[in-house]
Amino acid sequence: MALMETHYYSFSLGSNITLNVFVPTPGSSEEITQINHTQKYDYEAGLPVLYLLHGAYGDAFSWVRYSNIDRYAQERGMVVVMASAENSFYQDLKSGKKYKTFFTEELPVFIQSVFPVTKDREKTYIAGFSMGGYGAWYLGLSRPDLYAKAASMSGALDIAGLYESATIQENENNPFSWEDSFGDPKKLSGSKYDLFALYDQDVKGGCVPKLYQAVGTEDFLYQSNLHVKEVLEAKHADLIYKEDKGGHDWNFWDKYIQDILDWLLQ
Amino acid sequence: MALMETHYYSFSLGSNITLNVFVPTPGSSEEITQINHTQKYDYEAGLPVLYLLHGAYGDAFSWVRYSNIDRYAQERGMVVVMASAENSFYQDLKSGKKYKTFFTEELPVFIQSVFPVTKDREKTYIAGFSMGGYGAWYLGLSRPDLYAKAASMSGALDIAGLYESATIQENENNPFSWEDSFGDPKKLSGSKYDLFALYDQDVKGGCVPKLYQAVGTEDFLYQSNLHVKEVLEAKHADLIYKEDKGGHDWNFWDKYIQDILDWLLQ
Amino acid sequence: MALMETHYYSFSLGSNITLNVFVPTPGSSEEITQINHTQKYDYEAGLPVLYLLHGAYGDAFSWVRYSNIDRYAQERGMVVVMASAENSFYQDLKSGKKYKTFFTEELPVFIQSVFPVTKDREKTYIAGFSMGGYGAWYLGLSRPDLYAKAASMSGALDIAGLYESATIQENENNPFSWEDSFGDPKKLSGSKYDLFALYDQDVKGGCVPKLYQAVGTEDFLYQSNLHVKEVLEAKHADLIYKEDKGGHDWNFWDKYIQDILDWLLQ
Amino acid sequence: MALMETHYYSFSLGSNITLNVFVPTPGSSEEITQINHTQKYDYEAGLPVLYLLHGAYGDAFSWVRYSNIDRYAQERGMVVVMASAENSFYQDLKSGKKYKTFFTEELPVFIQSVFPVTKDREKTYIAGFSMGGYGAWYLGLSRPDLYAKAASMSGALDIAGLYESATIQENENNPFSWEDSFGDPKKLSGSKYDLFALYDQDVKGGCVPKLYQAVGTEDFLYQSNLHVKEVLEAKHADLIYKEDKGGHDWNFWDKYIQDILDWLLQ
Repeated sequence: MALMETHYYSFSLGSNITLNVFVPTPGSSEEITQINHTQKYDYEAGLPVLYLLHGAYGDAFSWVRYSNIDRYAQERGMVVVMASAENSFYQDLKSGKKYKTFFTEELPVFIQSVFPVTKDREKTYIAGFSMGGYGAWYLGLSRPDLYAKAASMSGALDIAGLYESATIQENENNPFSWEDSFGDPKKLSGSKYDLFALYDQDVKGGCVPKLYQAVGTEDFLYQSNLHVKEVLEAKHADLIYKEDKGGHDWNFWDKYIQDILDWLLQ
Repeated sequence: MALMETHYYSFSLGSNITLNVFVPTPGSSEEITQINHTQKYDYEAGLPVLYLLHGAYGDAFSWVRYSNIDRYAQERGMVVVMASAENSFYQDLKSGKKYKTFFTEELPVFIQSVFPVTKDREKTYIAGFSMGGYGAWYLGLSRPDLYAKAASMSGALDIAGLYESATIQENENNPFSWEDSFGDPKKLSGSKYDLFALYDQDVKGGCVPKLYQAVGTEDFLYQSNLHVKEVLEAKHADLIYKEDKGGHDWNFWDKYIQDILDWLLQ
Repeated sequence: MALMETHYYSFSLGSNITLNVFVPTPGSSEEITQINHTQKYDYEAGLPVLYLLHGAYGDAFSWVRYSNIDRYAQERGMVVVMASAENSFYQDLKSGKKYKTFFTEELPVFIQSVFPVTKDREKTYIAGFSMGGYGAWYLGLSRPDLYAKAASMSGALDIAGLYESATIQENENNPFSWEDSFGDPKKLSGSKYDLFALYDQDVKGGCVPKLYQAVGTEDFLYQSNLHVKEVLEAKHADLIYKEDKGGHDWNFWDKYIQDILDWLLQ
Repeated sequence: MALMETHYYSFSLGSNITLNVFVPTPGSSEEITQINHTQKYDYEAGLPVLYLLHGAYGDAFSWVRYSNIDRYAQERGMVVVMASAENSFYQDLKSGKKYKTFFTEELPVFIQSVFPVTKDREKTYIAGFSMGGYGAWYLGLSRPDLYAKAASMSGALDIAGLYESATIQENENNPFSWEDSFGDPKKLSGSKYDLFALYDQDVKGGCVPKLYQAVGTEDFLYQSNLHVKEVLEAKHADLIYKEDKGGHDWNFWDKYIQDILDWLLQ
């Protein structure tokens, strides 16, 4: 597997930034059984690609450092793209940095131009955990033309409900700037940031990404995820729901990313 | 020279971030004339340290990629620390990320704890160009107890004047969020963001860093830098001023950083 | 946890090289519950340090990419140092590169000079898997004054027996240059490369590192590891031996490195 | 410019290795004058590509750290590939690592498969300095079907003469293993390692890369380079020769790489 730490200038973010990109390669260390110099790179059709999002406090290195995604993606022949979004909830921030624009407009064009990935929506996926679980569904439901599948682990999916119930609090010990991300956080319900509203809109438009949702029964977001599942099932959504013993931590995410990769490639 | 690309969690910024740190070492590639396994690391007294700031659009990799700072610092035995500040003007942003706090409180403690640098103000320096020229003087004058010397190249030093004269415009093609950095940009003059006011305050307090200012005669900030020089000379500041043929570009900065390193170590 | 990708010139290897160093830090992403700017770095006593070796085909990035060592070391407050040794078996190669010298003389001095680690043998450890399992015991038993404990997973420990039985073959599809590492590989038994001989020598000298050995029952080195265990137990060695279901792969190593970290800190 | 630090498994070298690859991009930091989200990546025809070699003691990071190649290549729209060859003289080493095979067979296929570069020989180039000056001509003349142009700065070009005259000595303070690279170094003249012999062979074969040679008048290899120039001019080679004040150092190489880039793109 080739891991490429990529530094380049992003127009949407107005800064040089760092990405990490995995590209599966014919050989992979520690699993070599024979040497074959004529190994072929069958990349011409374009490899399937997963945009993999981090949670609050994280960055483009979180998945590399805290999981074994490198091995899991190599085994499955999947390109994985990891970029930083700070604590933005993957939004175009009022204060300037445009993360939604970056992830849905600039980054895919860059990746498709520079790396051997598919341009086919059916092989383009997005996933994440916690804030990035919201991000994966948010970006996926906002641009169903781009992604065939969107997966959340331990996601802060019901963003309006979580704010209203103070499950994710707005205070000085909290990394989020709700106003910078969402404007008035009291008006989240039904807004363009609300995943339920986005889902309804996609149904009307006739194009909805397939959804996946996993959560640990000890996660502080467990009840909220159960509620999201119930709402979506009532809407007859094409949703895979999984729950398992576990908390809001990397043990859970390192395990369920493997399940997600298998689901993406079904 | 050891170059350390450092990933760690910043409390002030609420995210994992990336730093680059140079530490001079007994041997340096391409200049080796003899092999000596008993080379000594004379680090116990603590090495002098320069915090080196980037300009707008840049990041912690700008100096590594676009200059030869690695060689220049190795030759002079200087530790160099480079971190990203996006387009923040090195301020505590209203929207949350606290760059001033990061650079003046968190980062120095991290660097002094992990790397073999001095804790002595007399050997602690700060420098930068363009937005980072302002940043170097701003952080230096805000915390004269921390830095003995502060150097600007092509600096946006007269921040109030530059805004008022529309030399640095506030518009959608501009990376800066003036409000996020400074609050009301029309009230910059005399404020805690104004370098002249900070200078006066340091004089009153009896502790002022030595200042260095270089600018190219073809730089769009040339006239503004001349004005800053005149104001400071009228105040009898301890200021080194240099001008030279050149523009607002890396050819100028790669040249003058060498002069700055020599000035720091005088 | 701070992860530092470190580039510097090695005298023993005659080249610029890349290391990875983890240093535990007061905060760690994705596990933050409160922000505290006054977090202290209690590094003055020097942190315990583990030199962690890779196997054949690997490099300084193997552990970062294929395991979760970052999280495990952060939880336990351990510095971890990872360097490349190619397929050298951690020897001073006849063709020039001196890996043994690098790991036992140059690297510890560099690490102790630049990073906040202990110089105390009692808190200095070495571990690895496969070729690096041999390497950990080889370096540990060669320099018992440096390391208090040495741990092997899936180790190619009985190097003479493995060569003689053709378990690790000498052929063109094999990455090892036996002659370059060991001279005549038919004379390994009883030589300075033979771990049994080194162990006996340490016993005579009155200073032996504590040993740890783990192996999977499906590993092609399982029988060889069993033999090593029996020989050492007959010598009444201070040895921890563990076997478990598993093969010669990263699932095993990612699991047992956690057990090793706990054993080191006992 | 996108800088990609790439980690992947090399079959020819039997290890995970690190490459650096620059790919020019529509925007580049510190030179931005307008933001245009619809910037196009015109990569479909395949970008021209330069394989850029380091000298003794160096690695894949030497050019990144010690020169401004990033800026120079961005300005000219050139992809640049930098890999480590240790002190091998870019040969297939007797002790195992096959650098010639890596650079001429494995690396180009990897680069052409993963990155948006041309497969056209007319736009494929190779250059280097010192040991890498020899390497550039050696690889270029060995495989004239692959590279249209080969450039040397401060090159150890007359390898037989340099050994015989003891200009580059064989001793323990020298990083080279002559035997590992070349077999018997006394038999270099006229061998497959001798650039003069390779040149004659290419002429016979009817395919010769264009050659470029620069050297400083204070370089210890100056006289040797003069001799090489005279021999090649007597053979009526298509050679650009440049000399200038300067030594065997990065000031010279950082200057002349710009001249080489211009020559490549003529």
